[in-house]
Amino acid sequence: MKKIIGLLAVLALGFQPLFGAGVKESQGGGNTGVALAESGRAKYVFLFIGDGMAMAQISAAEVFSTARSSKDVAVTRLEFTRFPVAGLTTTYDAGTFITDSASAGTAIATGNKTLSGVINMDVGKTKRFKTIAEYAHEAGMKVGIVSSVTLNHATPASFYAKVPSRNDYYDIAVQLAGSGFEYFGGGLIDQRTGKNKDQTDAVEMAKKAGYTYIDTNEGFHALKAGAGKVIAVNAVIQDSGSMPYEIDRKPGGLSLADYTRKGIELLDNPAGFFFMVEGGKVDWACHANDAGAAIGDVLSLDAAIREALEFARRHPQETLIVVTGDHETGGLTIGFAGTQYNTFFDKVALQKRSYVAFDSDVLKPYKARVPQDSAKLEDLLQAIQESFGIDFNALSDVQKEQVRFAFQRSMGNEPQRSFAEDQYLLYGGYEPLTVKLTQVMNQTAGIGWTSYAHTGVPVSTFASGVHAETFGGYYDNTDLFHKLADAMNIKVQ
Amino acid sequence: MKKIIGLLAVLALGFQPLFGAGVKESQGGGNTGVALAESGRAKYVFLFIGDGMAMAQISAAEVFSTARSSKDVAVTRLEFTRFPVAGLTTTYDAGTFITDSASAGTAIATGNKTLSGVINMDVGKTKRFKTIAEYAHEAGMKVGIVSSVTLNHATPASFYAKVPSRNDYYDIAVQLAGSGFEYFGGGLIDQRTGKNKDQTDAVEMAKKAGYTYIDTNEGFHALKAGAGKVIAVNAVIQDSGSMPYEIDRKPGGLSLADYTRKGIELLDNPAGFFFMVEGGKVDWACHANDAGAAIGDVLSLDAAIREALEFARRHPQETLIVVTGDHETGGLTIGFAGTQYNTFFDKVALQKRSYVAFDSDVLKPYKARVPQDSAKLEDLLQAIQESFGIDFNALSDVQKEQVRFAFQRSMGNEPQRSFAEDQYLLYGGYEPLTVKLTQVMNQTAGIGWTSYAHTGVPVSTFASGVHAETFGGYYDNTDLFHKLADAMNIKVQ
Repeated sequence: MKKIIGLLAVLALGFQPLFGAGVKESQGGGNTGVALAESGRAKYVFLFIGDGMAMAQISAAEVFSTARSSKDVAVTRLEFTRFPVAGLTTTYDAGTFITDSASAGTAIATGNKTLSGVINMDVGKTKRFKTIAEYAHEAGMKVGIVSSVTLNHATPASFYAKVPSRNDYYDIAVQLAGSGFEYFGGGLIDQRTGKNKDQTDAVEMAKKAGYTYIDTNEGFHALKAGAGKVIAVNAVIQDSGSMPYEIDRKPGGLSLADYTRKGIELLDNPAGFFFMVEGGKVDWACHANDAGAAIGDVLSLDAAIREALEFARRHPQETLIVVTGDHETGGLTIGFAGTQYNTFFDKVALQKRSYVAFDSDVLKPYKARVPQDSAKLEDLLQAIQESFGIDFNALSDVQKEQVRFAFQRSMGNEPQRSFAEDQYLLYGGYEPLTVKLTQVMNQTAGIGWTSYAHTGVPVSTFASGVHAETFGGYYDNTDLFHKLADAMNIKVQ
Repeated sequence: MKKIIGLLAVLALGFQPLFGAGVKESQGGGNTGVALAESGRAKYVFLFIGDGMAMAQISAAEVFSTARSSKDVAVTRLEFTRFPVAGLTTTYDAGTFITDSASAGTAIATGNKTLSGVINMDVGKTKRFKTIAEYAHEAGMKVGIVSSVTLNHATPASFYAKVPSRNDYYDIAVQLAGSGFEYFGGGLIDQRTGKNKDQTDAVEMAKKAGYTYIDTNEGFHALKAGAGKVIAVNAVIQDSGSMPYEIDRKPGGLSLADYTRKGIELLDNPAGFFFMVEGGKVDWACHANDAGAAIGDVLSLDAAIREALEFARRHPQETLIVVTGDHETGGLTIGFAGTQYNTFFDKVALQKRSYVAFDSDVLKPYKARVPQDSAKLEDLLQAIQESFGIDFNALSDVQKEQVRFAFQRSMGNEPQRSFAEDQYLLYGGYEPLTVKLTQVMNQTAGIGWTSYAHTGVPVSTFASGVHAETFGGYYDNTDLFHKLADAMNIKVQ
């Protein structure tokens, strides 16, 4: 701890230099009296966003990492939770205490509150907001945007697009093509020819605008510094155009860390860069109450952050790394009524498939193969054990009943006592059997959930490097924009 | 935000002066080279502990305060969440990721990890740890201990007692009597004549040791500076020897703020003081999943903090105020599956009784009056409406069934489909009807719970005043002891 306090003290003495060309003016002019230097500016800025990642998700990944490797309960820190600065960030938007990713992205990227669903426009949907990435780009920095979900999903879009609705995927794709940003990597571009597939292909537009479009591992590995503007989408696509969950990633498949390392190689230049990397599927896993998949993707984000730290070691006086979440998802906590004061996070390591992979690899083929009225849960018990580490026969009576009930629901057999309304409460619109299995698996480990949506608890923000000290304390997500701008010495218009 | 950043920068420049008599030595000696002054030391130290209070509880109180007074969702800050410094604090103990209040209290008060249930002794239960309050007392500072629960409950006991089990209430009471601390206030001393009521009265022992024992409002109000050593227990006692929940407090009843203000009056002296104030029933309310009662007691703790701030305004260079939680309780989140992205915290304001008051004022008399087989939920609907603002007829079908089912459970009628094991999962050992009503009420407001026990998510710590800057960042609860000791310039042996 002494080390951290010492570092904090050092950081808190950080200067507030002007941006680029402004240095000479300040040296000659009647300024604040502080000697300003180019070296005080954050020239290489990483912003990592765990979508749906608040303290509970981070803490779950820490407890998992600890429990997996040791009987000791002294918590193993992640790369980014060892950062010297930690803050707490409120996430409410212009209309609700519980934000969505569009309004949260707008807040972080532009410093403005707007309504859920809106990206970088005001509540009246007429005014457009300039993003921190656009400011950085105008100032001559290169810009990279990586996400494990589609590149025109709400969070990545918040750094380059302005649309009245996050669902305007084609409009967002067109704006991506016109952004001029140097590097996009991760999931696909969704609806690239429009909702009805009758529009000009946005990828073709991007190519015309000078982008190299890569969708193979070979192409990706061949990319070298000086490659020009690049859009690199993953060769393996899972649900809704996204990269696979880390837990489902096959050997040789590209990870978020791969996209981050490549981004650094392509973006590195004397004028600096702004690089946003999103772990977008932490959110998706938490919507489905799948802690195993969520933890895997928090750790995958942490591995990407390690790449940034590696870069920061070479540029310690000019690099800022900020890690935040846009909101919490799922109402995750480390504690469940049935396990009381105990946790068994080592059991999470027994999970071998995300809920998505279980749906696609096990449940969907079974449904296609077996007629509804001859379906038996017993047929799936081995696959359930292999996928989630759940020994059905070892479950409690309540859990057994819940799993049987969910199986019948998934097979379309509605038991007499059910209410229509509790279908959502119990399964959140997901495959009943699958979400019940993840819940049972989580509960066995001592993990609880309260929702299939986002929640309103503040997220935590971690920072390291030049100007990191300004990210301590308790503040609003809109402040993140201003702190980033100040660190880069960007004058907000 | 600029104000906060500015303050943080100023705070981060804080000196590290020596303690009391050490000043002269440092001025003459070959020290670190920094000019040390008595004025740099935290002479008046407040430690507020919300038992079971993590970020979700704090955030719920903020959202409630906002929703109660306005349609705007821009979150209203509490007194202590406006503090310039915020940190995140891990709470695991020597044996489990989910601590109890005894091991958490030991960590905060002594900087040592121990097993759940143990107070200020090592895991072998032989070695005794010296507490921050004892260090302060030895250094000539006065010490005050206030709690809304019993004065020998785990958290307050952690500042003066050393016992192998938190349940050794009589031993703790005897150690309280022998502590020499100047001020105890709040709930009763539990088991003051021992578990079997056959021991020497610990209160009499305290009187012999020079304490004035007060248990009336008149006696309390008559206490003035210079009163000597005081134990002031509340005239009105609710469950298990505790002060009433804030939501149940009657006009004229003493609040946590009253005990804090009086403590300041009694403790204020030129040698300084260490003053621990616990909001102990945030935890109890969260165990029972009663958000209304929990929020009321967070706000009550906040009002007590306002008293400390008032004092700090008069001694800005010598006062440190730290606010933390010992762990999270209940797995509280601001979001429930049934309300999705919506919250209706204004509905929490309709709650007029805690779960304890509903039990004692409504359910217990009803059970005594009405035979089991003629009990009808309809008899209680008006009282339910008055107590929790729940209009039964407006509930969803699922909620209606849950409430009817819980009513039958409370009346001792076990419906056919029940499992013995789900009694705990559904009601956590509380009155089924009461806990179901608080859950329904919470769910209507958009509040979810995952447990009746504690959880393992980190808590948040807020600090203001001299040396507050050291409480930023992400650290362990054992570090709180060292940070407090450093702020007071106490040399830990």
